[in-house]
Amino acid sequence: MAHTEKKQFAVIGMGRFGLSVAKALSGMGFDVLAIDSDELQTQAVSTIVTHAVSADSTDEEALRALGIRNFDVVVVAIGEDIQASILTTLILKDMGGPLIVVKAQNELHGKVLHKIGADKVIYPERDMGLRVAHHLTSPNILDYIELSDEYSIVELRATKAMIGQNLKELNVRAKFGCNVMAIKRGTKMNISPSSSDRLSEGDVLVIVGEKNDLTKMELAYSEG
Amino acid sequence: MAHTEKKQFAVIGMGRFGLSVAKALSGMGFDVLAIDSDELQTQAVSTIVTHAVSADSTDEEALRALGIRNFDVVVVAIGEDIQASILTTLILKDMGGPLIVVKAQNELHGKVLHKIGADKVIYPERDMGLRVAHHLTSPNILDYIELSDEYSIVELRATKAMIGQNLKELNVRAKFGCNVMAIKRGTKMNISPSSSDRLSEGDVLVIVGEKNDLTKMELAYSEG
Ligand SMILES: Nc1ncnc2c1ncn2[C@@H]1O[C@H](COP(=O)(O)OP(=O)(O)OP(=O)(O)O)[C@@H](O)[C@H]1O
Ligand SMILES: Nc1ncnc2c1ncn2[C@@H]1O[C@H](COP(=O)(O)OP(=O)(O)OP(=O)(O)O)[C@@H](O)[C@H]1O
Ligand SMILES: [Ca+2]
Ligand SMILES: [Ca+2]
Ligand SMILES: [Ca+2]
Ligand SMILES: [Ca+2]
Repeated sequence: MAHTEKKQFAVIGMGRFGLSVAKALSGMGFDVLAIDSDELQTQAVSTIVTHAVSADSTDEEALRALGIRNFDVVVVAIGEDIQASILTTLILKDMGGPLIVVKAQNELHGKVLHKIGADKVIYPERDMGLRVAHHLTSPNILDYIELSDEYSIVELRATKAMIGQNLKELNVRAKFGCNVMAIKRGTKMNISPSSSDRLSEGDVLVIVGEKNDLTKMELAYSEG
Repeated sequence: MAHTEKKQFAVIGMGRFGLSVAKALSGMGFDVLAIDSDELQTQAVSTIVTHAVSADSTDEEALRALGIRNFDVVVVAIGEDIQASILTTLILKDMGGPLIVVKAQNELHGKVLHKIGADKVIYPERDMGLRVAHHLTSPNILDYIELSDEYSIVELRATKAMIGQNLKELNVRAKFGCNVMAIKRGTKMNISPSSSDRLSEGDVLVIVGEKNDLTKMELAYSEG
């Protein structure tokens, strides 16, 4: 499999996260092998992905029989059974070959996964929780997306005070060190806004900046 | 509580998602009431949030006794017990008052929640699965973030062919209709890149555009 052009993916664990990964990869045209120890879960996904099999990923022989080491990427999306998640990662690492991406339950689980050789550790619930929290704190903040430890993107609904101003007058760059990267108007999105673009009611500004700068801006513009 | 200036939040269900929401809100200085039927879960969070109580949210009297209807926002983060999630949402809606935000297990659960009056329905695992899938399909795509049905943000590692070029020469705007909104270099992020900025090895471009344009660009730049 490693010799074909398209990347080969295996996803272990068809919970909500694993299922979404497998579906999206299939939708993009990639070959996906879906594995779950629960036959009902693999049945549900069998019409969507290339191959779906019932197997326990803590069983080394079962993984070998599936040719796992010839895949390019394996996503371990076992959630609540932390022991199975760790053991699966260990076995995969020991076999060598694929890039190993693992969903973690919490920071401690994540640390262990890194130590035993997971190439990437993902915290879907934690990351989305953070995003939703920012979104909820102000009626004007519609979304919050972390770009790095220091930088984020915020979607801000134009406040009353902003309406009628152009971006030059608004001047979030000088005031807060942030940058307006796009303006949403209804279903349209202007992804290269200019300083003369004027804000209307209902406009949503997509703004990038350092987290502390964005927080200052959020507070300055919070009307609620 | 509705008369104080700061918004009051309640979070029901201290799973990974609910815990992350509660922690983030607390970290931003807001008062948070954390509720879980499992006393161990509320104990774990009691040092982080303003109030943590053990209660079953499907018990209307218990929610009334906690003064839930005086809160501004209630987040229902019960995951696997779909019946409890729906019943809790119904009770909250019936009481009136707070904005109701609910985590859904799947699309069907989400549809029911909307019908019974949830103000916002969130799918943390599905959304993160989508993001991770895009990230995995190309060695150069480091992240993928959905902004709307049509627009996304992609983080692209500068390919060999890009190194030494400036943004004017790269010209993703003319070639793909996308816009470079930031350049990450190590821990630094340039959030107002100019056309004369030249790319170095290891640089990461943060690019906004329509999904189909981004996909074309991803394919054109995929080296793996
Ligand atoms: N050893 C194993 N081998 C294969 N599949 C497994 C194994 N252990 C658990 N699974 C499967 O992994 C899937 C996801 O696990 P679980 O439901 O515990 O995770 P989760 O974190 O709640 O998932 P999500 O939040 O994404 O829905 C389940 O369908 C389960 O059957
Ligand atoms: N009726 C209820 N009242 C209060 N809390 C509840 C109720 N039912 C479940 N919970 C709590 O909700 C929390 C989250 O539920 P659960 O673990 O099923 O969700 P989950 O989707 O797996 O969460 P996550 O993926 O975010 O970790 C648990 O701590 C559970 O004790
Ligand atoms: Ca589960
Ligand atoms: Ca779960
Ligand atoms: Ca759980
Ligand atoms: Ca989950």
